[in-house]
Amino acid sequence: MIVYDYPMIQIIRQTEEEMKAYQELSKEELLSLKAELDKAYEAEKAKGLKLDMSRGKPAVSQLDMAMDFMDTLNSESSMKTEDGVDVRNYGVLEGIPEARKLLGDMMGVPADHVIVCGNGSLAIMFDTVSRSVTHGVNGCTPWCRLDKVKFLCPVPGYDRHFAITQYFGIEMVNVPMTPQGPDMDLVEKLVSEDESIKGIWCVPKYSNPQGYTYSEETVRRFAALKPAAKDFRIYWDNAYVMHHLYDDRQDELPEILSLCEEAGNPDMVFEFCSTSKVIFAGAGISAIASSKANLEEIKKSMSIMTIGYDKINQLRHVRYFKDINGIALHMKKHAEQMRHKFEAVLDVLDRELSGLGIGEWTKPNGGYFISFDAMEGCAKAIVAKCKEAGVILTGAGAAFPYGKDPKDSNIRIAPTYPALEELAMAVDLFVLCVKLVSVEKLLAGG
Amino acid sequence: MIVYDYPMIQIIRQTEEEMKAYQELSKEELLSLKAELDKAYEAEKAKGLKLDMSRGKPAVSQLDMAMDFMDTLNSESSMKTEDGVDVRNYGVLEGIPEARKLLGDMMGVPADHVIVCGNGSLAIMFDTVSRSVTHGVNGCTPWCRLDKVKFLCPVPGYDRHFAITQYFGIEMVNVPMTPQGPDMDLVEKLVSEDESIKGIWCVPKYSNPQGYTYSEETVRRFAALKPAAKDFRIYWDNAYVMHHLYDDRQDELPEILSLCEEAGNPDMVFEFCSTSKVIFAGAGISAIASSKANLEEIKKSMSIMTIGYDKINQLRHVRYFKDINGIALHMKKHAEQMRHKFEAVLDVLDRELSGLGIGEWTKPNGGYFISFDAMEGCAKAIVAKCKEAGVILTGAGAAFPYGKDPKDSNIRIAPTYPALEELAMAVDLFVLCVKLVSVEKLLAGG
Repeated sequence: MIVYDYPMIQIIRQTEEEMKAYQELSKEELLSLKAELDKAYEAEKAKGLKLDMSRGKPAVSQLDMAMDFMDTLNSESSMKTEDGVDVRNYGVLEGIPEARKLLGDMMGVPADHVIVCGNGSLAIMFDTVSRSVTHGVNGCTPWCRLDKVKFLCPVPGYDRHFAITQYFGIEMVNVPMTPQGPDMDLVEKLVSEDESIKGIWCVPKYSNPQGYTYSEETVRRFAALKPAAKDFRIYWDNAYVMHHLYDDRQDELPEILSLCEEAGNPDMVFEFCSTSKVIFAGAGISAIASSKANLEEIKKSMSIMTIGYDKINQLRHVRYFKDINGIALHMKKHAEQMRHKFEAVLDVLDRELSGLGIGEWTKPNGGYFISFDAMEGCAKAIVAKCKEAGVILTGAGAAFPYGKDPKDSNIRIAPTYPALEELAMAVDLFVLCVKLVSVEKLLAGG
Repeated sequence: MIVYDYPMIQIIRQTEEEMKAYQELSKEELLSLKAELDKAYEAEKAKGLKLDMSRGKPAVSQLDMAMDFMDTLNSESSMKTEDGVDVRNYGVLEGIPEARKLLGDMMGVPADHVIVCGNGSLAIMFDTVSRSVTHGVNGCTPWCRLDKVKFLCPVPGYDRHFAITQYFGIEMVNVPMTPQGPDMDLVEKLVSEDESIKGIWCVPKYSNPQGYTYSEETVRRFAALKPAAKDFRIYWDNAYVMHHLYDDRQDELPEILSLCEEAGNPDMVFEFCSTSKVIFAGAGISAIASSKANLEEIKKSMSIMTIGYDKINQLRHVRYFKDINGIALHMKKHAEQMRHKFEAVLDVLDRELSGLGIGEWTKPNGGYFISFDAMEGCAKAIVAKCKEAGVILTGAGAAFPYGKDPKDSNIRIAPTYPALEELAMAVDLFVLCVKLVSVEKLLAGG
């Protein structure tokens, strides 16, 4: 086994030699192995597990940890912002100043480049695409009037991004991910040649599902893109910007807005973040960051769409965390809860699958997921086998546009939600299913 | 003066004789009156008033009244719904069951016909129209692919409704309001003849800006409409459903969803409500009610748009109000604060303008506004005169599609936000401006 120590991520790969481990077994050996695995699988099934590892949800213990957030504001609290606005009444479309600063600091962006919105960033992304469809981007033709609109989709990626583009009939073009980010040669080529390409979905830090962080070179190449389409935008979903698992191994992501400005592309990025996985899932606050010109455009349509977002929850966040250091401190507590789970999964994968040539996986420094690549043509069968024995994984293929993994190989592992003991059982079952399906595949001549 | 006592609203009208009061003055009398009014106006201006009556905002005292809402949930609270769901995590797209019941009860609709959403109902209305533009209504052609889409707009009406339809390029057709609701003869005729008419904006109870409540006959005629367009929907914005000003004079509005079902039009209504003006403006919860078939369609696109709305604020509402009676009780407290302000305005209008033939106004039993009709061609000038002396009113024409009041006559008065003493000063200025502008108009041969 070789451990590639990329500057910001470790990837465990079997060597050529090891890769042949399962493949080198004779048919008889495979059959006997299968019999053994079948027996083990039946025993697992008999346990009657019932676990959901399908989504990147925080565990109850992570939520419990923030219950004092609920005391932040009470009937004795001042309900005024720093600049004297009563958060209990209408107004302040762009969010209260201190919340703009707080979420700006998360992204490394000045407050006046930030609009703070509602309880989740997915809705802002949806609205951003929807507005482009109906009204166009900064004066360009609305996408609903174009014959063809395409988005580049680094794969595997976040299923809900792809669901938005699919919903609006936008054609999705797969771009392979590497540990340094999307294949930039391909991105540069496609974006500069094809005017119908209007966007690219990015989770630049601790990517979903691999946990990769884009390298400085990647981010600089993004900032320097020369898109054929004037209304091409980078959809920079910085969902895991502060979600480190380790104190001493933290990925760093260059700030893209300023790099774009330097490169003469000030309007090319829409950046998104939220506190959904900082405080309570679905009850946080979210933000979009962009150039002032873009924000002015956004505010025009926002002023039609809403009288303003929930400013009380914005104030609650600011009073609770005080500043970015407060968030960093809170994220450390999350990390303490989460890294044992990541390590538990990685330990089992290591111990049970290393050298068998039937899987590769990532070992991220942050984020919410581990990406697992099985032998080609095995992912769906593995997920189905797990389900049959009571463990729900993210559907195979979910991390690809249209739900289609061309290799039927990728599985997203979400270790956070189950308790540690349950997780151990789930991963034991998972590796068993990987082995079983791989043996069956090899027996079938795969 | 004749007081028309409609079953649910009083309207003050001058008799024919009185109507001539100002108009019967000789030129000399008008000139001397003008001199007097000019002097009074200069005195008013010298006071240096600074008051904003432009929007229907609750007063600080109304917000203070609900501060114990902030204590409802704290770190000791159970964060689980009746059916055991942890509101701190993802999930439950349609809202927690007890919140669906609470907002359903506000509208008189069963919980399973309700989806509870975010912090304001305007966003749901926007999303509903936006979805119809990009994806169509229940399988019909998306509006962006049609040459012409029209909405009927009872006028005067709510400016933010009209802003949404204008934003999406939907042609707006004025329909006159009456104390019983929109002119139903015209609505029935247009809707049955013109397939391009896809909707009508309604504020059926304590309408914005008149405070009219649709009569039972009107609601029944709505439910029995035979629209030419399959995707015609009634946009029933029940914003003031519980906003009575008086205990003993409360308008009643028949429940339209069940009437539509009876009439064989189960899918014809999207109903909206929120607690923005019940609890804190912009920090409430909102809901859409409709047929189950419509809600299924809505949920399909909602599941792309969001992982779910803020369930913690939903739970906070339910725990605070307990049930619909809790809301009714709280609304009584609002009424106690608001009705003095309405009465203060009405008293001055009565005292100062009755019999002068230069204005008509409504005297609502609830809602947030009084609608004032000046002599034709005077509204803009009156609003400008008020502004010059420091009182901001809603822009003249704002209550009409495209901001165009064909008669330049209507002014929306929003009495709630200023304190009572300030309000008295503002209304004194207002009636003075009405008189002054009317005299000028008459002198100019208007």
